[in-house]
Amino acid sequence: LFIFHPTPVLVNIGNHFDLKASVFTAPRRGIYSFSFHVVKVYNRQTIQVNLMQNEYPVISAFAGDQDVTREAASNGVLLMVERDDRVYLKLERGNLMGGWKYSTFSGFLVFPL
Amino acid sequence: LFIFHPTPVLVNIGNHFDLKASVFTAPRRGIYSFSFHVVKVYNRQTIQVNLMQNEYPVISAFAGDQDVTREAASNGVLLMVERDDRVYLKLERGNLMGGWKYSTFSGFLVFPL
Amino acid sequence: LFIFHPTPVLVNIGNHFDLKASVFTAPRRGIYSFSFHVVKVYNRQTIQVNLMQNEYPVISAFAGDQDVTREAASNGVLLMVERDDRVYLKLERGNLMGGWKYSTFSGFLVFPL
Repeated sequence: LFIFHPTPVLVNIGNHFDLKASVFTAPRRGIYSFSFHVVKVYNRQTIQVNLMQNEYPVISAFAGDQDVTREAASNGVLLMVERDDRVYLKLERGNLMGGWKYSTFSGFLVFPL
Repeated sequence: LFIFHPTPVLVNIGNHFDLKASVFTAPRRGIYSFSFHVVKVYNRQTIQVNLMQNEYPVISAFAGDQDVTREAASNGVLLMVERDDRVYLKLERGNLMGGWKYSTFSGFLVFPL
Repeated sequence: LFIFHPTPVLVNIGNHFDLKASVFTAPRRGIYSFSFHVVKVYNRQTIQVNLMQNEYPVISAFAGDQDVTREAASNGVLLMVERDDRVYLKLERGNLMGGWKYSTFSGFLVFPL
């Protein structure tokens, strides 16, 4: 159970979210719900954000509008996660000029297996 | 508990999600959380996606920007669902040229009633 | 456990969501999941929606495209909430001409503390 939020992390029960690396390491096997909203500020690039499970992209989200000040690349998923799996966001394409402000990344255990 | 994802379905605990029809049939009465992100590829149409409970639309989401490559129609909801209710997505307007790639549809039981 | 939806509120287990004020008052301490999708109709303004916990903004979402008919400002978060905390949406900037149609605001207790 954690939230990635630029500063601060709002909730990090169990301390399974590594703040420095922004990586969640699963404390146990189960189904987890993850969702993210990554906000880009005005620029001409399209961003693609991947939710990664270990080394593999699971889902992607995009934000590509050139005319708006702030736009979010959002998605969410339920994932079967093994103990010690690492789940994190990867900026596959584009950049986030201005950082992660307003972006969120949340997850929690829906039920254990 | 399921995820609709074009290929493959990532999680389908209990096997209550019919992959061919893309319809979730509730195994029991309760409150369920549903969310979806339907991605359209570049085209000039606006899409409207409805989350359907049996024959009734519950919530809608839209994606209508003509200038971006990929854009998601996203929404989410908590629903009181009776046993055997069917929950699914319906493309009410527009088309998804290029299919459901990157789209997700997830749901899980929050608590039984 | 509640959903804000213009009319009607779809789920309001425990009756902790005040329909008139659109404010959720937490019945007990715990981690709650909140998410919202606020849809604006066509107009030239950018909207900013804040999720408020008591008097404090926790997360924000934006919708600013001038060329699309409907666009959602979406975000979601896990929050540590004390008993009697009030959680609600605030339109920080812009207006929603045409009201909250298609908008949703959902929350549920992930686990008690």
